[in-house]
Amino acid sequence: MKNTCYSIKVNAADNVAVVVFRGGLNKGSQIEGNIQLLEDTPQGHKVALCDIAKGEKVIRYGQIIGYAIHSIQKGAWVKEELLEMPGSPCLDNLPEYSNEKISYKPLDGFSFQGYKNTDGSVGTKNILCITTSVQCVSGVTDHIVNRIRNELLPNYPNVDDVVGITHSYGCGVAINAPAAIIPIRTLRNIPLNPNFGGEVMVLGLGCEKLQPQTIIDPETLLQKTKPSSLSLQEERFNGFQEMVGVILETAKTHLEKLNLRKRETCPASELVVGVQCGGSDALSGLTANPAVGFATDLIVRTGGSVMFSEVTEVRDGVNLLSPRISDPEVSKALIREMSWYDDYLNKGSVDRSANTTPGNKKGGLSNIVEKAMGSIIKSGSTEIVDVIGPGERIRKKGLTFCATPASDFICGTLQLAAGMNIHVFTTGRGTPYGLKEVPVIKVSTNSALSDRWHDLIDVDAGKIATGQSSIEDIGWEIFNLILDVASGRKTVAADRLGLHNDLVLFNPAPIT
Amino acid sequence: MKNTCYSIKVNAADNVAVVVFRGGLNKGSQIEGNIQLLEDTPQGHKVALCDIAKGEKVIRYGQIIGYAIHSIQKGAWVKEELLEMPGSPCLDNLPEYSNEKISYKPLDGFSFQGYKNTDGSVGTKNILCITTSVQCVSGVTDHIVNRIRNELLPNYPNVDDVVGITHSYGCGVAINAPAAIIPIRTLRNIPLNPNFGGEVMVLGLGCEKLQPQTIIDPETLLQKTKPSSLSLQEERFNGFQEMVGVILETAKTHLEKLNLRKRETCPASELVVGVQCGGSDALSGLTANPAVGFATDLIVRTGGSVMFSEVTEVRDGVNLLSPRISDPEVSKALIREMSWYDDYLNKGSVDRSANTTPGNKKGGLSNIVEKAMGSIIKSGSTEIVDVIGPGERIRKKGLTFCATPASDFICGTLQLAAGMNIHVFTTGRGTPYGLKEVPVIKVSTNSALSDRWHDLIDVDAGKIATGQSSIEDIGWEIFNLILDVASGRKTVAADRLGLHNDLVLFNPAPIT
Repeated sequence: MKNTCYSIKVNAADNVAVVVFRGGLNKGSQIEGNIQLLEDTPQGHKVALCDIAKGEKVIRYGQIIGYAIHSIQKGAWVKEELLEMPGSPCLDNLPEYSNEKISYKPLDGFSFQGYKNTDGSVGTKNILCITTSVQCVSGVTDHIVNRIRNELLPNYPNVDDVVGITHSYGCGVAINAPAAIIPIRTLRNIPLNPNFGGEVMVLGLGCEKLQPQTIIDPETLLQKTKPSSLSLQEERFNGFQEMVGVILETAKTHLEKLNLRKRETCPASELVVGVQCGGSDALSGLTANPAVGFATDLIVRTGGSVMFSEVTEVRDGVNLLSPRISDPEVSKALIREMSWYDDYLNKGSVDRSANTTPGNKKGGLSNIVEKAMGSIIKSGSTEIVDVIGPGERIRKKGLTFCATPASDFICGTLQLAAGMNIHVFTTGRGTPYGLKEVPVIKVSTNSALSDRWHDLIDVDAGKIATGQSSIEDIGWEIFNLILDVASGRKTVAADRLGLHNDLVLFNPAPIT
Repeated sequence: MKNTCYSIKVNAADNVAVVVFRGGLNKGSQIEGNIQLLEDTPQGHKVALCDIAKGEKVIRYGQIIGYAIHSIQKGAWVKEELLEMPGSPCLDNLPEYSNEKISYKPLDGFSFQGYKNTDGSVGTKNILCITTSVQCVSGVTDHIVNRIRNELLPNYPNVDDVVGITHSYGCGVAINAPAAIIPIRTLRNIPLNPNFGGEVMVLGLGCEKLQPQTIIDPETLLQKTKPSSLSLQEERFNGFQEMVGVILETAKTHLEKLNLRKRETCPASELVVGVQCGGSDALSGLTANPAVGFATDLIVRTGGSVMFSEVTEVRDGVNLLSPRISDPEVSKALIREMSWYDDYLNKGSVDRSANTTPGNKKGGLSNIVEKAMGSIIKSGSTEIVDVIGPGERIRKKGLTFCATPASDFICGTLQLAAGMNIHVFTTGRGTPYGLKEVPVIKVSTNSALSDRWHDLIDVDAGKIATGQSSIEDIGWEIFNLILDVASGRKTVAADRLGLHNDLVLFNPAPIT
């Protein structure tokens, strides 16, 4: 066991350090050698390492996270109200590719047991997906999914589950508004997720604006099989019971095919990992997110794919990301997505500062700049090879920025649509996040949370703060757990408890 | 049995009539005396009653629904593509109160068996409501609701059900944006619905932007009892199982109290009816909606409350509603709500024409003007005593315009928040709409639908088109069914089948 750790200073240029000692530190405690705390300071909060004059920069992660509103004494607790937030980096002249390409040694020999699809993608689960073209059919879909789970699934032992993709889109919406493309392409891409094996059913109503053929294109399906499309208003359906009977029979034809799928050894390069954080605190950027970033680098080194997301948490660190892009088209795409979001927030009379939550602040994150610095670290350190818009599918191996809102459920839904087959989620305050469609590995930023939520958290990255583990140790732990979970050898907490959130679409267009 | 009806001309000024004969009419058929059809015309579609020159008005309901793009021959099918849509009525100089107040005879002696609340409101069901402050807890809430339904409810025979108010709001949203007031007040008002009897539980996470105390104000609760507020991040919860145990124990205290509620005889004036249409066709405005309008007048005559809604379906008929408002403040509120929606659609680069669906058009509704004329008729003919914004609570007895989007689920959610205790829903194309929180009576506009969906539709207003029933007959049938369902004597199709849609919040503010 290593020495107890009281505080962490990330970058040599920092003039604040973060208290990482569980329960916080009392007035008079010493940190970083000879700095004496002037007041009791909670875990996750910042302490001034020198006197900071009024108007001077406050620096964490080597970046300006604010300007001192009053002079701050060495050893003082640097509270939110002492900081004036800096503006966002201007999108017009972002730093360019540094040319100092860090060359990573490829990582060979890692594999997992997955379900191969004919298009080359690989599933980590074997699920029957019943998607829907409109919210009107969600009650019927819930009924059908329950019947399939209880009555049919026991006959198809190789099929893990059945999920209904119900949502609040499809009608009563301005379907020709420019921004409607986002929910529409999301619904089009979700059924293409590798975990559904190309056996897709769509339930529609009949009179809805979003017609089933708009979201199910047989040409794009993984297995090139004919999807089943049923509309409740079809004249052949004589009442609800008959409707249900036909739908269950249709489901059987897909279950038969899914039941033939078997796990096979696949290289780790077939992993498509979506990384996300939710309920962050100041330790997020010191423990869980750097460990995820380390695992991100490992996945990319195997030749696999990782997506990071959350535009409002990337916006203030975009100047740190732009030098990691060598392709000018990808740089343009990054700027386009940031700029679109600036406009979108502006139309609603807010800006990216609308992101931080009371829990973030209580956890020591003063503002969105500080939160962003801790968030983007999940992206590791490799080149960003692509930027995709919300609801688009991932196109390249390596590290992709998938431009989504930071809202946990919307981000998860959009990463699902992009094609992730495994999800890594870090949390500091704690959230019982889970998805039915892909396994979610939950990583806690602090040990207090993983002790208390012993049955809800999968990995404790809090051990980094206490000095018991290193970022590398936890990074490897996450990497190995990804392989185990993707293979079905280990089950994540959310699946063990059956805790799953509904998907949530991102619809920036009007409702009618 | 009356004579077979082939077509309906609503107003003496109309130059089109609508084919109401089931299956449509063939070329050569005669309607309205001596008009010979020039082509096969489907049910619900319009036929020209005289030659209409290019540029001339096409009139239905005595209102201009379009201008002829080409000359139209007497007897021709007046298709959508032949009509140029007129502009919306200008909001600046709407016609004022006509002063010809139609005086309705009060309707006495009608009652129902309801659950009285201490604030004077009356429930039609006895339901435990578990509301939530954030989407992060929806998986846990689903788990809890299932456990309560299966393990606890059998011990509380007077409690009808338990519902979880899960939603996609609460965090990851711009909570300080001006438009955020809409989802916030909606969530604040839903637990006040009379069907929940003031026994309210709220599940929160802890770190969310929308803190539980923002949506549960003990002062406003129906029974002035202390609401139970539990947050999953509370330090006392040592893991998921312990969390669930405490929540189930808390639920018991509320179930004990709800179980004491008994139905009592209440005057019909305690009804709060929300009326809505979804999946409309051209018969909607001839059969189901006028019959609902007749029932609306009956409810208002008993001293009860009715809400009608759907801004985009009212916008083009606002000049017909403004003369029904005597209070200048209410007139201003109507204009304010219409104007807000015009702006909202405009920001998304669309207008109210985004409302009509492929099903509407297939059913004979050429555009939003024609749809609006058929929609507002649900409001009957009495004075409009109040206009409330989306998510606000109803304040007056009589007829209120509750300004909501026309989206079925959003409208239903907002009428629920406004305090409806019974819901009437008309449909022409057919939708299996249903809510857990209040009973929904579904009325079909045509008999083909109610024959086919024999187990999904509660009232067949199609008999008006065939001449078997009158608007008055079906109006009284709906009124009497409202009393029976509100009393628990009859069960609606949606409840019999257990078909219920999730609530959907209206959030015009940005996601972060």
